[in-house]
Amino acid sequence: MHADRTTVGRLAERGAYDFPTIAAILDAALICHVGFVADDGQPIVLPTIHARIHRALYLHGSVLAHWLKDAEGTRLCVTATIVDDIVLARSVFQSSMNYRSAVALGTAQIVRSPQEREAAFKAISEHVCPGRWNDARLPNDGELAATIVVKVPIEQASAKVRTGPPKDPQEDLALGYWAGLVPVSSEYGDPVADPKLPPEIAVPPYVRRLVRSGSEAITTEENA
Amino acid sequence: MHADRTTVGRLAERGAYDFPTIAAILDAALICHVGFVADDGQPIVLPTIHARIHRALYLHGSVLAHWLKDAEGTRLCVTATIVDDIVLARSVFQSSMNYRSAVALGTAQIVRSPQEREAAFKAISEHVCPGRWNDARLPNDGELAATIVVKVPIEQASAKVRTGPPKDPQEDLALGYWAGLVPVSSEYGDPVADPKLPPEIAVPPYVRRLVRSGSEAITTEENA
Repeated sequence: MHADRTTVGRLAERGAYDFPTIAAILDAALICHVGFVADDGQPIVLPTIHARIHRALYLHGSVLAHWLKDAEGTRLCVTATIVDDIVLARSVFQSSMNYRSAVALGTAQIVRSPQEREAAFKAISEHVCPGRWNDARLPNDGELAATIVVKVPIEQASAKVRTGPPKDPQEDLALGYWAGLVPVSSEYGDPVADPKLPPEIAVPPYVRRLVRSGSEAITTEENA
Repeated sequence: MHADRTTVGRLAERGAYDFPTIAAILDAALICHVGFVADDGQPIVLPTIHARIHRALYLHGSVLAHWLKDAEGTRLCVTATIVDDIVLARSVFQSSMNYRSAVALGTAQIVRSPQEREAAFKAISEHVCPGRWNDARLPNDGELAATIVVKVPIEQASAKVRTGPPKDPQEDLALGYWAGLVPVSSEYGDPVADPKLPPEIAVPPYVRRLVRSGSEAITTEENA
């Protein structure tokens, strides 16, 4: 996997620009990495949870996080990547990964509308664990005051996807090396109850469903 | 998981600055996300394979990739993240993730020494699949000429780690919601042979070892 420009100049066959493809990758990735430029010009990349609503991404965090507090009007890059296979070609050069990656660019807006903030909290919660929003204590006034929500309207975006077997040149096929794919997947294990949980409270059905689904987030139908 | 500044100003208990901790996260992550600032000031975050040798990270890619070709002297941020659990607290606000994340900052150097380039290629190959370097066709002159290697000396770095159960405040413990962890792990599946592979070539032992190990990269002892 060679990282390239977001405009996918190289390896055009791996570039996929249609929004449904990009949206599906953003939705399937459990977390994203958000990039911003610090005051001194240093690029900073941090992992965070995200959710997509139509053509915007929502991020959230503490009011004490400088990059969120100062985000209004700054350019952000939100990148989500899912690795599907290690690609072992006969040559080191052709060895690669199968992956799906989406890069979304936009100018950050701090969300102030209570309705839009609630929609973002719900979307982020449901992105991680569909069903949880209706089975948890929702944010109180103090918690709301302590949390910033940033909206990133997706102004530009691209996706890159590699699938399929190694692409060794003809002359390498006779070499005696094994070649193929090693599948990579993100899996959920059996839920571990909080030590403080009363034993009579069972694992809820939506958590059991999550574990069965594997860790690619489940897309809600209203958000396609 | 709230993304914060690399200096880990907030949530000090999650900040871990010692280099062995940071190095272990960089080594365990299969891929990283690299951030740079494009000419127009836009931050760009791309996924790529990395390898660490002592206090430097090595990235590689095509000579046609602008961000690599133009990397000399630019500031980069390399971030590696491993998600360990979804943390379902009784409140949405306390819900989080258990994760390990390392952020490394440095100024890119394009590597020109053939010996250092080869060491980087080997380290990257072994990072993904330990043992492969000695059982594959190594780069030829044309492939070497087509590939840029970028070194990122780690000038500043930090790690953030969250572990453990939800941290609900006392007054939430009596709520009837289930709370706990849903473990997340990256797993390798059974190798899939290239359709062009002669059937008599068996899956090599180091590939079988990789599959058994789970997808956290195996650290070589010389590199601790």
